[in-house]
Amino acid sequence: MTTTLDAALVRIPRPRDEAAHEAGRLLDAKTKPLGSLGRLEDLACRLAAIRGEVPAEPLLPAIVVAAADHGVAAEGVSPYPQEVTGQMLANFASGGAAVSVLAREADARLVVVDAGVIDPPSIDEVRSGTVKGVRGSGNIARGAAMARQVAVGLIERGIALAEELAADGISVVGVGDMGIANTTAASAVCAALLPADPSSVCGPGTGLDGPGVERKVEIVRAALRANDLSEGRDAPEPVEVLASVGGLEIAFLTGVMLGAASRRVPVLLDGFVTGAAALIAVGLSPDMGGSLIAATRSPEPGHPLVLERLGLVPLLDLGLRLGEGSGAALALPLVRAAVAILTDMATFEGAGVSRA
Amino acid sequence: MTTTLDAALVRIPRPRDEAAHEAGRLLDAKTKPLGSLGRLEDLACRLAAIRGEVPAEPLLPAIVVAAADHGVAAEGVSPYPQEVTGQMLANFASGGAAVSVLAREADARLVVVDAGVIDPPSIDEVRSGTVKGVRGSGNIARGAAMARQVAVGLIERGIALAEELAADGISVVGVGDMGIANTTAASAVCAALLPADPSSVCGPGTGLDGPGVERKVEIVRAALRANDLSEGRDAPEPVEVLASVGGLEIAFLTGVMLGAASRRVPVLLDGFVTGAAALIAVGLSPDMGGSLIAATRSPEPGHPLVLERLGLVPLLDLGLRLGEGSGAALALPLVRAAVAILTDMATFEGAGVSRA
Repeated sequence: MTTTLDAALVRIPRPRDEAAHEAGRLLDAKTKPLGSLGRLEDLACRLAAIRGEVPAEPLLPAIVVAAADHGVAAEGVSPYPQEVTGQMLANFASGGAAVSVLAREADARLVVVDAGVIDPPSIDEVRSGTVKGVRGSGNIARGAAMARQVAVGLIERGIALAEELAADGISVVGVGDMGIANTTAASAVCAALLPADPSSVCGPGTGLDGPGVERKVEIVRAALRANDLSEGRDAPEPVEVLASVGGLEIAFLTGVMLGAASRRVPVLLDGFVTGAAALIAVGLSPDMGGSLIAATRSPEPGHPLVLERLGLVPLLDLGLRLGEGSGAALALPLVRAAVAILTDMATFEGAGVSRA
Repeated sequence: MTTTLDAALVRIPRPRDEAAHEAGRLLDAKTKPLGSLGRLEDLACRLAAIRGEVPAEPLLPAIVVAAADHGVAAEGVSPYPQEVTGQMLANFASGGAAVSVLAREADARLVVVDAGVIDPPSIDEVRSGTVKGVRGSGNIARGAAMARQVAVGLIERGIALAEELAADGISVVGVGDMGIANTTAASAVCAALLPADPSSVCGPGTGLDGPGVERKVEIVRAALRANDLSEGRDAPEPVEVLASVGGLEIAFLTGVMLGAASRRVPVLLDGFVTGAAALIAVGLSPDMGGSLIAATRSPEPGHPLVLERLGLVPLLDLGLRLGEGSGAALALPLVRAAVAILTDMATFEGAGVSRA
């Protein structure tokens, strides 16, 4: 690993419990029965812990959506053609995709990153996040997704972006992914890191039928075998798993999470693919887990296993399975509301309301 | 019943299935895998059905929070003193309550109604919703909550408010309640209308302990007996139940729901108390149920029974038990997002994205 990744890992702070307790004390003085805002209060306390202090104003949100192509698409694991990755990158940037619309609704800055799309659009709004010109990962069913130094380089570009956003005042980051066939890569990452049998993590992704899912399970088994990650391999090293069976956008998003956590910026996870990236990030730095918030529960069967491992309960459970950061964007108003009850609600004393 | 209530019942339209289908067709053309936005897509279709057409622009939201006092507070069924109802009414109006903060965050107009608070604040922002000067309901453990003509009058005032809001361009209404001891009244209404045993609907409300909840169950049993609504009384008439064991704000909110539905304005329910009002509204007009959307699931044990009866699955499940319309306000961004994916997302054709 290079200095940048090592430095970020050293810098990742633990959540500050005292800030969470202070938020809890403030909430208990507000005009409402104790704890009656349920998980919104828990969220407020968690945000305080991650930030290291009770927020005094609204958090400034960004959504980072990273896209890349996957060699394993050649195995027919997605109903969509590979060209859709680049087309959607253009759609993100021009404002027509779900995450574009939902980020606007949430007043969030949308940062669109090309982490290795084979045929990327030439649009100013798309930021380049590639490393060594690598476009498209290798077919994991036959070998490694990428060289280890490419994986580390992508993580570092993600860290750099998160640090840039934090320096720019962004104080909560949602993460999203795009890449035809990327739930296959995410399934392989989860199978290796949880560990779990591929049959318990693979699902329909964007719309496979039953036989399609069975085939996907076999492709993931093949990927684990081809990369020496099959069952029996205990606790493989996270960057090795990423480079072997991950994806370029998964590497970049892992970096975004590490960089955000190192700057005390809460990370709002989206669905299954960002969950796989989070497993890698937490594998690199267990303290990282304290900075994560789960926005949504994906119907992909591997997602509950990931959430359980991360110790997270999602804010929303609406059957979202789009990715892109759409779920993270939908949860941002809850983050905003959690801060607002801390900063804007009256106290019993201030409002002259009698206590129980 | 007077003409106004009868007229509103006659006017209540059914949801237009064709509008829901048209919304579904539009969503299927958008740049995302079919159905991948899960329940957000269902919500978009339901909003179209209620409105009678696919929304072409954002819905304009209001939250109506109605407050009243309850004679049954004398039985010690709440840990809070009765004076808190009026104090909170002032807090709503002056912007410090949870619903004040959350309505602001959701860009919703907050309409604060005094439906019969014993000691109401003199604040311009509080609208009067009382009938015949009745302030505070009777103690339901010993007799009727209110005269039938008061119940009908309050429903009609609620209808009139909803019609005024609709005429003013409001196109989605969240409802909220405030009233010390009102989960006891709501429990009695639910026990009578579901029907269900009081022990299966009563919960801690704002914070009763175990023995407190047991006592509340006995008070609700006494209320049903005192009002000739005990087990064995099949299908009591909804207005009779309301007048016997309901509350003044519950009556007003029943009217708001009926008036909103009659103008094709979707109604976002909050928690258990607004759920009880919805049972009355649906009892008066079964078509009314088509206009309801459940924002949140309350931990009160009666709430899941109410939601099941109404055929609703809540959008949020965050352990909220505050009432006030706080849950409805928290769900408004999802309503806004559901409309935005209809109006703002690009189509496969428009964005040049290949289909599966």
